[in-house]
Amino acid sequence: MPFISFEGVEGCGKSTQMRLLAERLRGRGGAVTATREPGGTPLGERLRAILLESRSALDPLAEWLLFEADRRQHLAEVVRPALAAGAWVLCDRFSDSTEAYQAAGRGLDAALIAEVDARVRDGVCPELTLLYDLDVAEGLARTRRRDAREGRFESEDLAFHERVRRRFLEIARREPLRVVVVPAQADAPAVFEETWRIVSERFAP
Amino acid sequence: MPFISFEGVEGCGKSTQMRLLAERLRGRGGAVTATREPGGTPLGERLRAILLESRSALDPLAEWLLFEADRRQHLAEVVRPALAAGAWVLCDRFSDSTEAYQAAGRGLDAALIAEVDARVRDGVCPELTLLYDLDVAEGLARTRRRDAREGRFESEDLAFHERVRRRFLEIARREPLRVVVVPAQADAPAVFEETWRIVSERFAP
Repeated sequence: MPFISFEGVEGCGKSTQMRLLAERLRGRGGAVTATREPGGTPLGERLRAILLESRSALDPLAEWLLFEADRRQHLAEVVRPALAAGAWVLCDRFSDSTEAYQAAGRGLDAALIAEVDARVRDGVCPELTLLYDLDVAEGLARTRRRDAREGRFESEDLAFHERVRRRFLEIARREPLRVVVVPAQADAPAVFEETWRIVSERFAP
Repeated sequence: MPFISFEGVEGCGKSTQMRLLAERLRGRGGAVTATREPGGTPLGERLRAILLESRSALDPLAEWLLFEADRRQHLAEVVRPALAAGAWVLCDRFSDSTEAYQAAGRGLDAALIAEVDARVRDGVCPELTLLYDLDVAEGLARTRRRDAREGRFESEDLAFHERVRRRFLEIARREPLRVVVVPAQADAPAVFEETWRIVSERFAP
């Protein structure tokens, strides 16, 4: 079964879309592993707390290395076994987020990130990436209505999030067969109609 | 003031030697920052718990990435500020341990490690590395007398530790101006005479 990643800026609704897709697939009898980065393993949840909740200054390169460590462990413990068992694997954020947030957002060297990320993935790549595209100010307003606390990324300025959004759209232009852009302004059920149309046309579940 | 790293196999006595050197330097009025890897920062102590105490399976590449993340944060928060302030910086393990344990011990790609480690260090390198050399079985016996619990590395087999020791000695042959091998069979005061002789000849503190 396919490996599908869900990407987009803060508040774009990707986690909701992933949950709705997992429910639809399970309702049709599919085996689904729905997971996320960072997180998804005991190590990952410890790193997630450091990466998303910590208020202390984290060096940008150290931050990136923690995301890659999380990804490696997550692939070994969760993604590869689930794919080997024939499950659909749905993942909330994957390597495109690293390129968008750490290279475009933080300004780290994209070539270094690509090289290390390729070693970390060691051949694993999503068959399909759904990129939920939304105005960044609208997305951030949604996250603030949901949770008044701001995490490490939500608290970055609008210019940071604009760089992230632009890089996601560049990735979609660079890899049009893998990455499908889904407009995310509408409400969740309407966006899910498009999510389901794309997935059902691509994989005929 | 110089940056000095302390390296060697488990139980070689490097931590004791570092403590004795810090005491001697402070007794002479020197400003000393004595620190360690992993650890030395709030992030580092959280990673240290994961890296040394965890009993769960940790992917070797993920393990290495956590060590590099720890080093980056440690350099930013502790080592660079202390060097800028004119302190002696004494560090229990540094990049040579990563080459010895992760490349030679775990079998990861030494070129990838060297490339990423150079980005992480970004020009910082110890002026002097004291490599305390000891038979690995003797070192492991010492650690077991000290603490019955075994950590992630102590519990590896003798062949692993032999690879680590050999790689440390290779590094010393490759970089003889930086790395000085100190035989570590004798008791701590006797080994410290040699530690002090090397440091005082090199830096005239």
